[in-house]
Amino acid sequence: MRATLMYSAGDVRVENVPDPVIKHPTDALVRITASCVCGSDLWPYASMKPEDGPARMGHEFIGIVEDTGSEVTTVKRGDLVVAPFAISDNTCEFCREGLHTSCAHAQANFWDGEAEEGGQAEAVRVPLADGTLVKLPVAPDSALIPSLLTLSDVFGTGYHAAVAGGVNERTRVTVIGDGAVGLLGVLSAKRLGAEQIILMGRHQARTDLGREFGATEVVSARGDEGIAQVRELTGGHGTHVVLECVGNMPAYQQATGIVRPGGVISRVGVPQYEEAPIGFGSLFRHNIRLAGGPAPVRAYIEELMPDILNGTIEPGKVFDTTTNLDGVPAGYQDMADRKSLKVLVKN
Amino acid sequence: MRATLMYSAGDVRVENVPDPVIKHPTDALVRITASCVCGSDLWPYASMKPEDGPARMGHEFIGIVEDTGSEVTTVKRGDLVVAPFAISDNTCEFCREGLHTSCAHAQANFWDGEAEEGGQAEAVRVPLADGTLVKLPVAPDSALIPSLLTLSDVFGTGYHAAVAGGVNERTRVTVIGDGAVGLLGVLSAKRLGAEQIILMGRHQARTDLGREFGATEVVSARGDEGIAQVRELTGGHGTHVVLECVGNMPAYQQATGIVRPGGVISRVGVPQYEEAPIGFGSLFRHNIRLAGGPAPVRAYIEELMPDILNGTIEPGKVFDTTTNLDGVPAGYQDMADRKSLKVLVKN
Repeated sequence: MRATLMYSAGDVRVENVPDPVIKHPTDALVRITASCVCGSDLWPYASMKPEDGPARMGHEFIGIVEDTGSEVTTVKRGDLVVAPFAISDNTCEFCREGLHTSCAHAQANFWDGEAEEGGQAEAVRVPLADGTLVKLPVAPDSALIPSLLTLSDVFGTGYHAAVAGGVNERTRVTVIGDGAVGLLGVLSAKRLGAEQIILMGRHQARTDLGREFGATEVVSARGDEGIAQVRELTGGHGTHVVLECVGNMPAYQQATGIVRPGGVISRVGVPQYEEAPIGFGSLFRHNIRLAGGPAPVRAYIEELMPDILNGTIEPGKVFDTTTNLDGVPAGYQDMADRKSLKVLVKN
Repeated sequence: MRATLMYSAGDVRVENVPDPVIKHPTDALVRITASCVCGSDLWPYASMKPEDGPARMGHEFIGIVEDTGSEVTTVKRGDLVVAPFAISDNTCEFCREGLHTSCAHAQANFWDGEAEEGGQAEAVRVPLADGTLVKLPVAPDSALIPSLLTLSDVFGTGYHAAVAGGVNERTRVTVIGDGAVGLLGVLSAKRLGAEQIILMGRHQARTDLGREFGATEVVSARGDEGIAQVRELTGGHGTHVVLECVGNMPAYQQATGIVRPGGVISRVGVPQYEEAPIGFGSLFRHNIRLAGGPAPVRAYIEELMPDILNGTIEPGKVFDTTTNLDGVPAGYQDMADRKSLKVLVKN
């Protein structure tokens, strides 16, 4: 079959690889019908060294079950399914608490950690199929597919940012980042009842979508000027919650500048740093809390799917480009160049 | 009157200073009857440069109101009162949320930031007396004074660590530090219902008191060995909450090693660092949260006092040495040498 491989920074190719096969009785084989390129794929696209490649790519997909191992009971051949970006058993003590990204099962993993599998491909072997896959009650060509595909990562990740930050109808919220996760953080904050949602971003097509998703104000300035503008919009104190949806140090520092005393910085952008300021001058003095991490999107799929099925929300609007498997390398480049917000790949 | 001044590291003196006077209509004058030396006083005692001194010392005290400004209504001459380590108006939006250490009033401050006032003295001018002072329903020579004095800082600080960490009957807890705050963090975790409370400390007299306060296990090892022992006591995963009651980098790193996925590190020891690891390898990977800061002890006084008055708890047991104002310099040295856990100063 054909699959996407990254050889090094800027070098993505679609090549022939061996077809996946069932290895464990808990596996399923899925023929992929829709996948996409993630903002987090752009980090290695910017920095990957040749000695770390080639790597199979893609961790967001929808597909049709083609075969199942003998122990799989919740999905069967012919089912249309969506997969979260993390493989989990959905039964361990962490999964039961809704923290599927810390699943204790030996086969639990991120797709990005699976050397032989990836979602930007024609097919995939899914470990722990009962825990990982969720059946979709639509046809593979449904108009809802783009929105349902966001349940695999970006919507659940934006939602996790808002949930981990404790967003509710009494919190003011700032969202840092106008990528797909940031925009869906806006949608999530709106869904959880926040009345003031400030979106920090500078690409108008994206911030316009942010306003459509529920942003009440947009601040395009960054750094000290951006901090000053958010403070001015919030009576001088900043917002109770800051959803940090980028992952680099300037975004973190911006977050520390605009969070209200006693507030929360909720991070879901994979940190591109290890050390950061958390002492008296940054977090400690005003009891600022830090939350977030890899989103347990599996925990949110059942909760979020009905709103997509009944048309209340349309998170799939983050896809502004559609291509096929051959178009994946160009899709990476377009997203890196910020020509595309998020690229949908239809097989 | 006489008051304690720190001239530089290791140099604490009791000297004559001008008597305090009412400056603002919201002030009260308090004749101090009991005060103490804080673990946080030991940081400048170890490092203060002569050019930063002399500084008035002491932020924990009980005393008798001698005079009040014209606008003071909640306390009057003759009342016995306790003061938290932070001055606050108890009416601003942050105080109403229970975050008195971020009080928005222009006169809000830490005692340690008041150049002309301190609690290790014969008397003190108390700004924002209505917000700051709490009347005590006992006599100045009551046997409950040591326990009531802990409401000014160490008990409220340990309690804040537990509250900010979300301790309840379903959480396992580790307390790092066998100082007064750590031991009262144990007492607080017990009060909030935690069934497993692991105390990390290596001074047996202190850890024995920790067991009396509710610690179920004591781990004296530090670093990797200490982390391994806590993990062994918790089924391999660590505890839901870690109360970090020290404030230095080894304590923080120990906390990151023993906190359970999805858990909380709650810090109340003033960080002696600004930058620390919070990226993928430390906090982010397993959604570890960070909480805590300067404790709004004012918010907890009414809640905690009844248990002291009715004898349910005796946090004053952290005082193992009693002296008078003349004995304060020796008290600092004894605490620095770890001969004394906490020194009570009776006037």
